[in-house]
Amino acid sequence: MTPANRPASTPANTPTTAITNIAALVTNDPSLGDGSPIGLIQDAAVVIGGDRVVWVGESSKAPATDNAVDAGGRAAVPGFVDSHSHLVFAGDRTQEFNARMSGRPYSAGGIRTTVAATRAATDDELSANVAKYLAEGLRQGTTTQETKSGYGLTVADEARALRVAARHTDEVTYLGAHIVAPELADDPAAYVALVTGDMLDACAPYARWVDVFCEKGAFDGDQARAILTAGTAKGLVPRVHANQLSYGPGVQLAVELDAASADHCTHLTDADIDALAHSRTVATLLPGAEFSTRARWPDARRLLDAGATVALSTDCNPGSSFTSSMAFCIALAVRDMGMTPDEAIWSATAGGAAALRRTDVGRLAPGARADLVLLDAPSHVHLAYRPGVPLTHAVWRAGERVR
Amino acid sequence: MTPANRPASTPANTPTTAITNIAALVTNDPSLGDGSPIGLIQDAAVVIGGDRVVWVGESSKAPATDNAVDAGGRAAVPGFVDSHSHLVFAGDRTQEFNARMSGRPYSAGGIRTTVAATRAATDDELSANVAKYLAEGLRQGTTTQETKSGYGLTVADEARALRVAARHTDEVTYLGAHIVAPELADDPAAYVALVTGDMLDACAPYARWVDVFCEKGAFDGDQARAILTAGTAKGLVPRVHANQLSYGPGVQLAVELDAASADHCTHLTDADIDALAHSRTVATLLPGAEFSTRARWPDARRLLDAGATVALSTDCNPGSSFTSSMAFCIALAVRDMGMTPDEAIWSATAGGAAALRRTDVGRLAPGARADLVLLDAPSHVHLAYRPGVPLTHAVWRAGERVR
Ligand SMILES: [Zn+2]
Ligand SMILES: [Zn+2]
Repeated sequence: MTPANRPASTPANTPTTAITNIAALVTNDPSLGDGSPIGLIQDAAVVIGGDRVVWVGESSKAPATDNAVDAGGRAAVPGFVDSHSHLVFAGDRTQEFNARMSGRPYSAGGIRTTVAATRAATDDELSANVAKYLAEGLRQGTTTQETKSGYGLTVADEARALRVAARHTDEVTYLGAHIVAPELADDPAAYVALVTGDMLDACAPYARWVDVFCEKGAFDGDQARAILTAGTAKGLVPRVHANQLSYGPGVQLAVELDAASADHCTHLTDADIDALAHSRTVATLLPGAEFSTRARWPDARRLLDAGATVALSTDCNPGSSFTSSMAFCIALAVRDMGMTPDEAIWSATAGGAAALRRTDVGRLAPGARADLVLLDAPSHVHLAYRPGVPLTHAVWRAGERVR
Repeated sequence: MTPANRPASTPANTPTTAITNIAALVTNDPSLGDGSPIGLIQDAAVVIGGDRVVWVGESSKAPATDNAVDAGGRAAVPGFVDSHSHLVFAGDRTQEFNARMSGRPYSAGGIRTTVAATRAATDDELSANVAKYLAEGLRQGTTTQETKSGYGLTVADEARALRVAARHTDEVTYLGAHIVAPELADDPAAYVALVTGDMLDACAPYARWVDVFCEKGAFDGDQARAILTAGTAKGLVPRVHANQLSYGPGVQLAVELDAASADHCTHLTDADIDALAHSRTVATLLPGAEFSTRARWPDARRLLDAGATVALSTDCNPGSSFTSSMAFCIALAVRDMGMTPDEAIWSATAGGAAALRRTDVGRLAPGARADLVLLDAPSHVHLAYRPGVPLTHAVWRAGERVR
């Protein structure tokens, strides 16, 4: 096709590419296709201009474009939005995992083990590690990846973690309040003062979000409120590790502070559910953590039925959830958390975008960033129907084919 | 290195290749490495000559070879032996799966749906489907794949299924006794007569194994005995779909007939366990089926503690377990079936080989077929530690690098 018949909406100097012959396209735009929340279009095409989607619809109605790619009857979904991970770390915890799953005693250092390895690593080692896991996620269709600090726990090490993370992604979260630093284990108040003082000053320039692990043994409700409030005063937006291991104040605090997301949500009272449902705080569920620690599953069905917005994410970290596979999380959510395949796929794309307060990703409609995963499958449902099978055939991010 | 200094044990005209710098090598030979059942060697090398392993040991002691490949500190395991799948089919059952997992009513035809689609397909379509799923498995490290008939259920359609399967793999199983053919639903005795008569005659030339689905609603103990005995008389070796959905006679029958394997083993009495433990019949567990049907998990721990030999396999089929991922089965076995990572990996390699009465595959020791998977991980434990993540970096089958 010649430049003369490109769609009028595309700037004259931007070549357009049509991806045609998509058996089933998840747009996440209910005004499109079948009108369901995932806006499914059969026999679809997507037209990309520059880094944006410029047109979606039935293949037969696609406008003329400069280039065309035949999807071969495959299904397509928006690039996954993984809104919760911990990728700035060094070392791994293979032996601890092996002992836990084998029922053998092991004097696990837990997060402290990773803190020691991370502090000992060079900037280049940390950067290479982040790049490695981002690339691994991208190969599996994750085109937006949030990641956090939290294995430094000193002013210098936390700031370094965020500086490194910011080289690789825009979605960077300050989690100085992951656990109390080992050096201040006897004086948590002093550590909270550090996290809300010098450490925050050093970290805020590199981060968009402030997070806290609100849990018995980590930070209580008052400490968490102080940390999130201090972060907000520096222009960061709150998100909370809430109600993972036990009932507690995390979810209510997240809603009170209009946090973008309350993450884990494994132990929720009716009041917690109600608070989430009447807020714009997203409930981000992380089934990889329950899988790898043999914990009880979060109840996505209960949240959805109450009207809460649910996101799915990997929680990728070397301690409790070392998966980078959003497809795996979808399969678990369908099997064990009461989500339908459509709901789980929505939560892994549009849900993640909502948890990051983004409208440019997580959907495939005109104006959205052209982040698209072509699956080796005729239906998006295969993400749950074919668990464990790598189904990523091709990935576009910001209009560029990256796999 | 020059041909002059190749290891003496290799024929002069066979070039040798060393895979060096393997951080952890699972040999499944307890006389090697750490002496555990998986015979783990740290900092290992494997030397391949032709289609065989000619040497394994510590990298520093590796003999001179014609070629060398640097594994880059990755872990290596024997190629997976997937001893139970149903790949000769057409169509899929996406809508049935979607309805089941979404709690929506759906008048599922079950196996009959796939029977109708399979009968309607051409030979070429069936062959292409088998090739597709074998290639998908191979990309994930499965270098030996058993597969079955069972969606034809007429003399011509069963024979065709096996003829097609035999083009692609040596491990072919006659499962005319999957369910009673729809045409003879009112006369199961007539169907058993067919399965043990004309159908067996037509199928035996293409198959190594005879199998039966011994279950309420399929074939009872007497029918199963008749079918397996008839197959044995034609030179086939028995294996049994046993005790999947309920307690029953399948396991005891498998042991009585010295079947190579009793598959599923989800509902076992103490007597069943005892029978397996005192036989050479392998208990083949298929956690993909329990995952995708939300069924209870088989208890691998109980079998292992009693002394039974356990294999893990995918059961890949479009109805109840549409996964081809042995790594996924390993992760489930560790999380939910009481296996350690080492046990699960042994069962997915050496265990599968035992279920197929093979000694040439499922291990990496001199004389074994050179089937090796190099993982994007420093430890074999990552197969369970990193669930859902595609970790296959490279695959050799019969000495040839195929990925
Ligand atoms: Zn986390
Ligand atoms: Zn089966």
